[in-house]
Amino acid sequence: MEKLIIIGSGPAGHAAAIYAWRADLKPLMFEGFYAAGVAAGGQLTTTTDVENYPWYVSIGGIELMEKMREQSLHCGARIETKTVDKVDFSTRPFKVFVGDEVHEAQSVIVSTGATAKRMGVPGEEKFWQKGISACAVCDGALPIFRDQPIVVVGGGDVACEEALHMTKFGSRVTMLVRRDEMRASKAMQERVKNNQKITIMWHTELVEALGEDTLQQVKIVNNQTQEESMIEAKGLFYAIGHTPNTAFLENQVELDASGYIKTQPGTTKTSVEGVFAAGDVQDHVYRQAVTSAGTGCMAALDAERWLGEQE
Amino acid sequence: MEKLIIIGSGPAGHAAAIYAWRADLKPLMFEGFYAAGVAAGGQLTTTTDVENYPWYVSIGGIELMEKMREQSLHCGARIETKTVDKVDFSTRPFKVFVGDEVHEAQSVIVSTGATAKRMGVPGEEKFWQKGISACAVCDGALPIFRDQPIVVVGGGDVACEEALHMTKFGSRVTMLVRRDEMRASKAMQERVKNNQKITIMWHTELVEALGEDTLQQVKIVNNQTQEESMIEAKGLFYAIGHTPNTAFLENQVELDASGYIKTQPGTTKTSVEGVFAAGDVQDHVYRQAVTSAGTGCMAALDAERWLGEQE
Repeated sequence: MEKLIIIGSGPAGHAAAIYAWRADLKPLMFEGFYAAGVAAGGQLTTTTDVENYPWYVSIGGIELMEKMREQSLHCGARIETKTVDKVDFSTRPFKVFVGDEVHEAQSVIVSTGATAKRMGVPGEEKFWQKGISACAVCDGALPIFRDQPIVVVGGGDVACEEALHMTKFGSRVTMLVRRDEMRASKAMQERVKNNQKITIMWHTELVEALGEDTLQQVKIVNNQTQEESMIEAKGLFYAIGHTPNTAFLENQVELDASGYIKTQPGTTKTSVEGVFAAGDVQDHVYRQAVTSAGTGCMAALDAERWLGEQE
Repeated sequence: MEKLIIIGSGPAGHAAAIYAWRADLKPLMFEGFYAAGVAAGGQLTTTTDVENYPWYVSIGGIELMEKMREQSLHCGARIETKTVDKVDFSTRPFKVFVGDEVHEAQSVIVSTGATAKRMGVPGEEKFWQKGISACAVCDGALPIFRDQPIVVVGGGDVACEEALHMTKFGSRVTMLVRRDEMRASKAMQERVKNNQKITIMWHTELVEALGEDTLQQVKIVNNQTQEESMIEAKGLFYAIGHTPNTAFLENQVELDASGYIKTQPGTTKTSVEGVFAAGDVQDHVYRQAVTSAGTGCMAALDAERWLGEQE
C-alpha cells in the first residue's frame, strides 16, 4: 500500500514528488511510457529553448525535464516508466491499474497534463519548434519571431489572445479562421479586428508548412473557392485547443465541460477526497511550467495535510 | 508612465518580471532597500540551503535570489533598490511613492511577501538557520534534524502542523505553549495530543538559544513558577505567525483579518482592478518559493490580459 501515487511526470508531478518526499510520503510516480503520445516529462520535452522558467536564463526543454527527474530521484521518489490505464477511486484505498499490476494508495495526485492539438499537415513535424508552436505566451518572445510575419490558426479566445500577444513581436499577424465567424467572445473579436497589425482570413485553412531549416511559408486554402495560396510566415501558432489527459479517469473525478479536472479554487482538491490534481490537467488558463510546478507543490502539501487528518 | 510596476523582489516579483518582460510590459521593479528589515530578495535570503526549489537539488538561498535577479535583468527588467513608501490606487494611473519620487503606472503587482515573527531572545541571531527556522515544511527534512530533539514555539494551527511535520524527522518534539490552552483548532490539538512523539509544555516560554556552531539547547521558563530549565534541541521552529508586508498599502486593497491581500481564488486579482498580488503577501497556506513563483507568473499574465482589455 502506497501513501501517495503521482500520475504524470511534467513539472507538476515532479514538484509534487519533491515536496511529497520532504513530507515523508515516499511517493511512487508513474511517469508514463509515451502516454498521450508524448515522452515522459510531458509537453516540455517537445520544446527547444525554455527562457521563462525561473531561474534558468535559458535551458533546453528536455534538459529541464531531466533535471526535474534527477531531483525527484535524488529525493528518493520511485519512478516507473509505465502508463496508468485506469483507476478506481470509488473506495479507499484507491486502486491504480498499470498493465497487469494493481497498486493501492491512500492518496493520489493526478498531473497528467494536456496535449496541444495539432493539424497533422505536411511539414508540421519537420518545423515543430522551428517556427511552429502551440504556445505564443511560451515561445512568442524568441528572437526568430522578432519583426517577422506570423500566422495564428484558430478562432477562439485563445487564438485571439495569441494573435494579440504576437503583435508585440511580429511585423504582422494573420489569423486563419475556418468559418466566417469566430467562437471567441465579442470583446476579444473586437480587439483583434481593431488591431491594425492583425489580418483575419475567413474560410481559410492550413494546408502545408514549408521552409528550409526553419519555417518560411505556409500554404493555405480558401475552403469555399478551393483556391490555394502561399503566405510568408516565420512563426505559425496553433491555437486550436488542448486535450486534457483525463480519459483514463473515466469521469471518476468531476471534470469541466472541456474535460479538465475541477479543483476547489486556491487548492488542488478534486471532487474525490484524497485525490488531488495539479498542472495543466486542471488549468487551461495559465499553463506555464512554473505555474504547474507551483500547483504540484500545493498538491503534495494538500495531500500531506489530508493524510494527517485521516490518522 | 509605466505599464507595470512590480513592488517586491522575492520569487513572486522576479517570476512576474520575467513573464511581464516576455509580454513586452517593460516592468519597473522596486526591490526594496531592507524593506521590512529583510534584504532585497526577501525571506529566502535568510535561508542557507534550499533543497525544494524545482529544479535545483541544492542551492543557497542568497545564490538562488541572485539567479532570480540576474534573469530579470537579463530579460530587461529595470530594478531599483528602493523601498516603496506608499501608493495611491484611488485613481488611474496608479501612483507609487518612493522617497521624493512619484511613479505612475497603468498596473501594479504587489509581491512584498511576509516576514516571520521572531522572539528576539539571546542566541537567536547566532543560530538562525543553524538550528533555528521559521518554516518546518521548508527546512524540516535537513539532515541536521534527523533523529534529533526538536522544539516548536507556538500554539496555533501552524505550530501544531509544524510539530506533526517534525515528528517524521526528529527523535521527539516539544511544543512550548505560553498559556494553558492553544489557539489551534480542536482537531489539530487532538492530533498533537495523541502523537506519542510530541510533548506539550504549558505556561512555558523560550528564554535563550544555546550551542556551539549549531544549536544544542534551549533555556525555557515556566511563566507561573518562574522556574527556568534547559532542554536539548537541535532544531527550534518558530511558529508564532507571519506579518504580511501590507502596511504601506494603507488598506487601499482589501485585506483579510490577518492583513494578507485578498485575491479572487484561482487568480491574482485584488479588490482594485489593475492591481494584482502574488506570493506570500496573499498566501498564508503554502508559502513556498515555487508556489510564490507560480503566482508571480500568473500575476504577469493577469496584468497583460487586463491591460489588453483597457486598450
